[in-house]
This record gives sequence, C-alpha cells and structure tokens, in this order.
Amino acid sequence: MHENLIAYINQRATSPLTKEEEALIIRAFQPKKLRKKQYLLQSGDVSKYVGFIVKGAMRQYSVDTKGVEHIVYLYLENWWACDRESAVMLTPSKYNIDAWEDTELLIVTVADMLDLIEKMPAFGQMTRFMDQRSFISSQRRLDSTISNTAEKRYEEFAAHHPQFIQRFPQHIIASFLGITKETLSRIRKQAMK
Amino acid sequence: MHENLIAYINQRATSPLTKEEEALIIRAFQPKKLRKKQYLLQSGDVSKYVGFIVKGAMRQYSVDTKGVEHIVYLYLENWWACDRESAVMLTPSKYNIDAWEDTELLIVTVADMLDLIEKMPAFGQMTRFMDQRSFISSQRRLDSTISNTAEKRYEEFAAHHPQFIQRFPQHIIASFLGITKETLSRIRKQAMK
Repeated sequence: MHENLIAYINQRATSPLTKEEEALIIRAFQPKKLRKKQYLLQSGDVSKYVGFIVKGAMRQYSVDTKGVEHIVYLYLENWWACDRESAVMLTPSKYNIDAWEDTELLIVTVADMLDLIEKMPAFGQMTRFMDQRSFISSQRRLDSTISNTAEKRYEEFAAHHPQFIQRFPQHIIASFLGITKETLSRIRKQAMK
Repeated sequence: MHENLIAYINQRATSPLTKEEEALIIRAFQPKKLRKKQYLLQSGDVSKYVGFIVKGAMRQYSVDTKGVEHIVYLYLENWWACDRESAVMLTPSKYNIDAWEDTELLIVTVADMLDLIEKMPAFGQMTRFMDQRSFISSQRRLDSTISNTAEKRYEEFAAHHPQFIQRFPQHIIASFLGITKETLSRIRKQAMK
C-alpha cells in the first residue's frame, strides 16, 4: 500500500527518497480501511490524523442547524484528507470526513507529519507542493464562486474534475458548488441538449 | 522599513533571526512605494514579485468581459500580496493587484523567496505558518460562501475583519463577498436598526 505514497512523494520532490527515508515513511503511515459511511473525523473532535487516499472516495462537510449538509471538499485517490484548521489550531472540528465509497487510507498523526517535514527535505518539498496546489485550487474555486453564474461554475468544475462527476451523485456535487439540486439538474439537462 | 518584516518573521519562527539572516533578508527585500491606483501586478503579466505590505491597502481582482471587477483578495498591513498561481506556474496572471491607498511595500522576487525558504529555517517556518493561515482563511471563506446567506456572510466577515470594513468602500466589500451593492446596502441598514 505504501508504494503509492512513495511514488507520489518522489514525483513531487527534487531527488528521490532514500531507502532509509522510505522506511521512516512506512513506519509513520498506518494503513486504515473505512467502509462507506464510516468516519475519518467526526465534528466536535480534534483532527489528529492526515489521511492519504490510496483507493476510494471521501467527503468533508458540515451539518447546519437545519440538518443540511454543506460539502467543503471531495477527495479521491492521491488526495489528502484532514481538517487543517482543527489540526493546526487544536480546536474541535466543525466538519465530518467520511467515506463515500469503501476506502483505503494511509494515516499519519499531525505530529509525525510535522516531524517528517522537518527531517526529510523530499517530504518538505512534497508538502510545499501540496500547499501550493491546494492554495491554487481553492483560489480558483473561490473566484469561480464569487464571479460566475451557476452554469459556468458547473462547466468549469466538470472540465477540471470529470472524475468527481462520475463518482459522486448530483446532490453531493450541487452542495459542493453551493447550488441547489434543482438548479444543477436544470443545468445538466441544458448541457445535454 | 525592514524592521516590520523582521518582527513579523520573528513572531512566527521558533527562534529569532540571527544578524546575518537579517542582513540576507534586507538584501533580498526591496522597498517600493505605490500611489493609489498604481499596480503591483497587471493581468497578462507573470507575477514575479511577492509584496509584504508595511503600510497601506491593496486589492486583487479580475475584470470580466463586461468590465465588472471581481475582488478575490483585500490586503492591509502585514499581509502578503502575490498571485501565487501565476508565480508558481509561471503563467500570465488573470488578476490585477493595485493600491487602494498610498502603499509602502517590501518586494522580493519569487526566486529569492524560494532561496530564503531553503536556506533559512526561520523563514521556512514563517512561510509554513502563512500557508496554514491562508489555507484556513480561504477554507472559512469558501465554507461561508457555499453555506451561508448573504446576511450571515457579511456578519462573519465584519466580525473577523472590522478593519476591512473601515478601509474599503461598500462596493469593494460587496464584490469581495460575491453579493450585489444593493444587497449589501440593505443588509447594513438592517444591521443598524
């Protein structure tokens, strides 16, 4: 299972991991399986683990006082799942992270993750790369949300993330885009014409 | 002018900068003054500089095909202004970054910034801290945008960033929140009752 993670790191670092570094990573990251609907994080808990998704699909969402779920992130293979605000600030999370499909993860404690960043240049480079990409993708999403119509938002999302459209149902995608199911359904019908 | 930046870094690093490190920072960061409406970055250019704001107020925005400005970020003292996507990917920016008040900056090239991160642990810690905070704040903003009504969005923004409300006019705040001027004006009138 760890080979996916090691390949992921090597693709993003300037020089590949040594055998010793690989051993440290294998020791720090524990395999975990979640069946559909099981949680990696439940709201009210502090986010202690960062999960690297080897296989499966997950979602991160809050539930408002009316019981409505608001999806903030969707995750597939090679994505990292964690409520970073809770992990960094050590505050109870307002989010749930659960498995939408049966999921295989490698999980690491936030403390071990920071330790690897300090000790291992390739790991630090990989996390810097992740930070940049996640910053860029959240900037694009924010920009699209404040600037674009619902039609255009769906269109951009479908173009950038076709695999999300295939693996999550419409009501999940609608919540992620901050639009109603009815609006999404109308947009998809128009797009098919 | 550099003392603000040095104090900013020392507050975020585990051990203070040495005199030699301070000298390297002073050499890398150049003072720059912008009068109101002057640009740090114009759309179509690659974002080559990262600006640390010593004094002033700036905004980052795109302009759509109808000439409407969409504000993605607002910046005040001790904030960093840069289009990170353009800087990292070396692609032309879709954004303008300009001064909303007369502004004093310390600017550094992206290459020098990366060099300081590699060579100076305190600088690397500070940027990691910045990345975390910017991730958290963009997560909060996204969450608020997809989950909340316009009223609630304005309320949260005003509670977290009262200084923005004081220093930017209503139409700028409305654009930042992705709502119309008219809606913001109505919300503010209701809030004052």
